[in-house]
Amino acid sequence: MDTRHVFIISDRTGITAETLSHSLLTQFPGVNFHTIALPFVDSVAKVDEAVQRIDAVGRETGNKPLVFTTFVEDTHREQLQRANGVFFDFFDTFIGPLERELKAESSHSAGQSHGMVDVARYTSRISAVNFSVHCDDGIHTSNYDQAMVVLMGVSRSGKTPTCLYLALRFGIYAANYPLTEDDFSQEVFPDALRIHRDKLFGLTIEPERLQQIRQERRGSGHYSELRQCRYEVTQAEVLYRQQGIPYLDATSMSIEEIGTTVIHRMKLHRDPY
Amino acid sequence: MDTRHVFIISDRTGITAETLSHSLLTQFPGVNFHTIALPFVDSVAKVDEAVQRIDAVGRETGNKPLVFTTFVEDTHREQLQRANGVFFDFFDTFIGPLERELKAESSHSAGQSHGMVDVARYTSRISAVNFSVHCDDGIHTSNYDQAMVVLMGVSRSGKTPTCLYLALRFGIYAANYPLTEDDFSQEVFPDALRIHRDKLFGLTIEPERLQQIRQERRGSGHYSELRQCRYEVTQAEVLYRQQGIPYLDATSMSIEEIGTTVIHRMKLHRDPY
Repeated sequence: MDTRHVFIISDRTGITAETLSHSLLTQFPGVNFHTIALPFVDSVAKVDEAVQRIDAVGRETGNKPLVFTTFVEDTHREQLQRANGVFFDFFDTFIGPLERELKAESSHSAGQSHGMVDVARYTSRISAVNFSVHCDDGIHTSNYDQAMVVLMGVSRSGKTPTCLYLALRFGIYAANYPLTEDDFSQEVFPDALRIHRDKLFGLTIEPERLQQIRQERRGSGHYSELRQCRYEVTQAEVLYRQQGIPYLDATSMSIEEIGTTVIHRMKLHRDPY
Repeated sequence: MDTRHVFIISDRTGITAETLSHSLLTQFPGVNFHTIALPFVDSVAKVDEAVQRIDAVGRETGNKPLVFTTFVEDTHREQLQRANGVFFDFFDTFIGPLERELKAESSHSAGQSHGMVDVARYTSRISAVNFSVHCDDGIHTSNYDQAMVVLMGVSRSGKTPTCLYLALRFGIYAANYPLTEDDFSQEVFPDALRIHRDKLFGLTIEPERLQQIRQERRGSGHYSELRQCRYEVTQAEVLYRQQGIPYLDATSMSIEEIGTTVIHRMKLHRDPY
């Protein structure tokens, strides 16, 4: 398989350039990409070093490297483009058409989207992360009035990573409540959940996949027997239907897909970072 | 301030389109954007509904909405473009030049970057998240041999959100160790840290900002007195220097900036999701 070298270069974090290049390059499964990220390239000397690295790779491989960039400073971008690479600059491409459409000049401050622009908004996001860690695994249910959503599901159905994703990426206060045998054997729906019924969202998962995840984590035992996984998943789904709780099968979904679906179906406010 | 309506539309999660539009629109601080995200628009009926929403907003506001899209299916994109909007399609723009440069056809599968493409790789990422939650706040230090990095710092210096970010976004096993008065008063450096010295990275923060964060969280008291914050921060920095631990001042840095810096300075392998 061919290997093609890719540089991601920015005078800030380079997160935008990395996200976009990742999306583009996954479109070429037949090419093996070797990625070199150079964040914080913010001086003439650092840009010069980057130029030399690009040119060295080009000479060694006989192929021009692909270079994805976002730069605050136009002069840095211009200096970098002296290197012998194939350049993709996201701002260069879209800012012009946007300026014309909006009849406004851009502030020329690429990278602000991942900086700490607004301290109050930023603090609120950190609070959301702390909230999700604090309310993980069904603890501190008394804080559910602060929650925007409460994810329910059996152990290892994906609640914790999804809550943390919602908090980190969108500043959403997400708690999670693990369903255990205690919940299934009780005649009554727990008070902590009942009073927040409109915030509840259930996750379910195929028992076979659940067994696999539990085995990887804890090895064999009652907890990771297929029979036990089947029992818990069935009971969870019965509970969701009985209580009218919206739910989804997360078996073959990524954290991003589960998170996006939860936001969409629960109509949560999303404030991306 | 002008308000301009923005649609983010995808037949998958729309995360790539959202990242791009967010980065671009933060360049126009003088415009107030109202964003409507429509993920999973993956049928003729749903695209039709999206077209109607775009046109309705255009009629109501007298301004064409900006529409950022990523579509797996070309037919969906073409159908959507019948709406009266200003379109920015990220794949349309860059895939052509990339195909020519790579002399390869793209797989036409936009959105794979945020799906669960490779189960083993995905499972490893979830394990990283679980590891970070499990090793939060200095618990389970015996698991540090699994860690790729151990963030140190006083309480509320940003360790937990940074560790979770590194795990969720890059699959990095990141533990965190809170520095307390016990650590400062001891003559010896704790064993759990000493044997993993090459994984240690310290965070520091301006005492005034630390005080503000602690007050917001816990109100007044010894913990959030400026004198106490100053004492802890000074001692932490003394410890870093004595032990030769690399560190940075995270006062005015976002989680993404701290995370990117840690990866860069510790030369961690990054595997973006």
